[in-house]
Amino acid sequence: MPELRKDHIIGRWVIIASERGKRPCDFKNIPESQSQAFCPFCNGNEAMTPPEVLAYRHAGTKPNEAGWWVRVVSNKFPALSPDGDVVRTGEGMYDMMNGVGAHEVIIETPDHDASYATYEQSQIEEILWSFRDRMMDLRRDRRFRYILLFKNHGREAGASLEHPHSQLIATPTVPKRVQEEVSGALNYYRFKERCVYCDIVKQELDTESRVVAENDSFVAFEPFASRFPFETWVVPRAHEAHFENIQKHHIMDMAKVMHTVFSRIKEVLNDPPYNFIIHTSPCNEPDLAHYHWHIEIMPKLTKVAGFEWGTGFYINPTPPEQAAAWLRGELADEIPQIPGANIPPKKQAV
Amino acid sequence: MPELRKDHIIGRWVIIASERGKRPCDFKNIPESQSQAFCPFCNGNEAMTPPEVLAYRHAGTKPNEAGWWVRVVSNKFPALSPDGDVVRTGEGMYDMMNGVGAHEVIIETPDHDASYATYEQSQIEEILWSFRDRMMDLRRDRRFRYILLFKNHGREAGASLEHPHSQLIATPTVPKRVQEEVSGALNYYRFKERCVYCDIVKQELDTESRVVAENDSFVAFEPFASRFPFETWVVPRAHEAHFENIQKHHIMDMAKVMHTVFSRIKEVLNDPPYNFIIHTSPCNEPDLAHYHWHIEIMPKLTKVAGFEWGTGFYINPTPPEQAAAWLRGELADEIPQIPGANIPPKKQAV
Repeated sequence: MPELRKDHIIGRWVIIASERGKRPCDFKNIPESQSQAFCPFCNGNEAMTPPEVLAYRHAGTKPNEAGWWVRVVSNKFPALSPDGDVVRTGEGMYDMMNGVGAHEVIIETPDHDASYATYEQSQIEEILWSFRDRMMDLRRDRRFRYILLFKNHGREAGASLEHPHSQLIATPTVPKRVQEEVSGALNYYRFKERCVYCDIVKQELDTESRVVAENDSFVAFEPFASRFPFETWVVPRAHEAHFENIQKHHIMDMAKVMHTVFSRIKEVLNDPPYNFIIHTSPCNEPDLAHYHWHIEIMPKLTKVAGFEWGTGFYINPTPPEQAAAWLRGELADEIPQIPGANIPPKKQAV
Repeated sequence: MPELRKDHIIGRWVIIASERGKRPCDFKNIPESQSQAFCPFCNGNEAMTPPEVLAYRHAGTKPNEAGWWVRVVSNKFPALSPDGDVVRTGEGMYDMMNGVGAHEVIIETPDHDASYATYEQSQIEEILWSFRDRMMDLRRDRRFRYILLFKNHGREAGASLEHPHSQLIATPTVPKRVQEEVSGALNYYRFKERCVYCDIVKQELDTESRVVAENDSFVAFEPFASRFPFETWVVPRAHEAHFENIQKHHIMDMAKVMHTVFSRIKEVLNDPPYNFIIHTSPCNEPDLAHYHWHIEIMPKLTKVAGFEWGTGFYINPTPPEQAAAWLRGELADEIPQIPGANIPPKKQAV
């Protein structure tokens, strides 16, 4: 079983492979992505994955056989293990616990070559329902304090298989990054008695220059303090702390915005590698007035280096106002000089 | 001038290129490393860099000409600009300031192909003196709150030039990551009335299994909660909050340990890309009883992906006890199974 170890100063936990670990030679030869012939996520190859924990499939088809359109399985090489209780121990001054958790893979489609940019809107809706269903199920397990839903797209963003998939990791402790976000939002709430994300949505819609797309339920924009070029947040207009409480008409609007955003990112940046993460409340929290779930999309166009590691600050060579204008289709690549302040704001309805 | 913008929730600052930013096409064609013929850091090419702010050079040689063995210049493409006062402003609910700071490059040697693994010990001492001298000089500028010294080695670690160099960035605010570390150490001090780093040094020397090298003044070890395979910290045995207060005999011992550590990393991991960062106290702090300067070295062998971005946690596939044994030369690559607990501890005197 993997081991969770705590950094004493910063308070972050690290998952350590406690048994046979990777040797130096393992880092020298990284295999290429598997070709479709050997893809364990393709239709007909269901026996190559662990058994499914959820599948949306056609009537009359059997579990772990073809006939599904979204399929969720346990990760074959899980970062955390679902067995046993959480046991916290010490080793001298250090703190650790056993690596209890869940690690699942959401196979988003049987189509090896599809992506958010090419999915039918109804397929994105189905994927979002599968996210919701797995979170609803896992949050009943009292050992889990947080459920992280994320996607790595492309090798540079950490994906080891090409076939479109997302991942879910349930952790036995609330991650540091989530604690920071929730407590940062609480600080703002105590000062203003308003949700910081609700205020951000309002200011972005008023300012317009960073908005990429919007509809009745969602706004997609480049955040004011974007860490990365073309970083994009998708935020629901209505206040809601937990993603998994999402309702049908919001799923439909969310799928619309995601389709627009990923199509634009693919077109403007030539299908870049990216990560996206659903930021939502910890499992045990009630409907917090100060926290507001949302999605953060981070194209991987720059390298994180010594400055970022040492400071927690980022250097972003593309102002978010310019990135938004490109994603809205207002700027062509060949325009030589773009004074950020003079970009005519225009919203894209989806 | 670049612009510093603050993330409202997390509290991190981002440096945004405020004038003409990188366009989508700029991310598609990344130039290869420059060859030696065009290296602006090589002997004889001094005119290709901004004027030197410090150089250790042979008697009778002139500034900005050949004849130096360590040379510090302003970065030609600085992340922050040295002109003007720090001005904080708001934009609706958002906070920003102008990008005042310093960004310098320490050219570590005239030899294009050298590295910490091949430098004479005396050359490492000279580099460390240049670090100290620049920090001593810059901390007199009251606009600067922190001075970060770091190195990116190899393209994957963010280096854009091959010639061995380190960088220094002086920031007008104490970086979030530094604040966290100093306040985490203060929490421990309040609870224990001891420095957490002093306690870690003691426990690592007692445990032995994570120690890579040591001498009278320094210990190099793989931290208990290593984020990355072969992450290595170099910590002075004696408590000291500020790197720049280092004395001559400590510089000599530090150079010895660094030479051993980087030689072992190069040999075991085949010259991997890496970052190293000097973690030291903010400029305005006195000699803190709770903070202890040190170096963190992070080989870039794994990718940071959605899970790490979403949680602030890390998945490390190589237990630090095994990494230390490899760096001490006790394990050969072909050994098939290594139960971490049974590695015979052995220290390497340098």
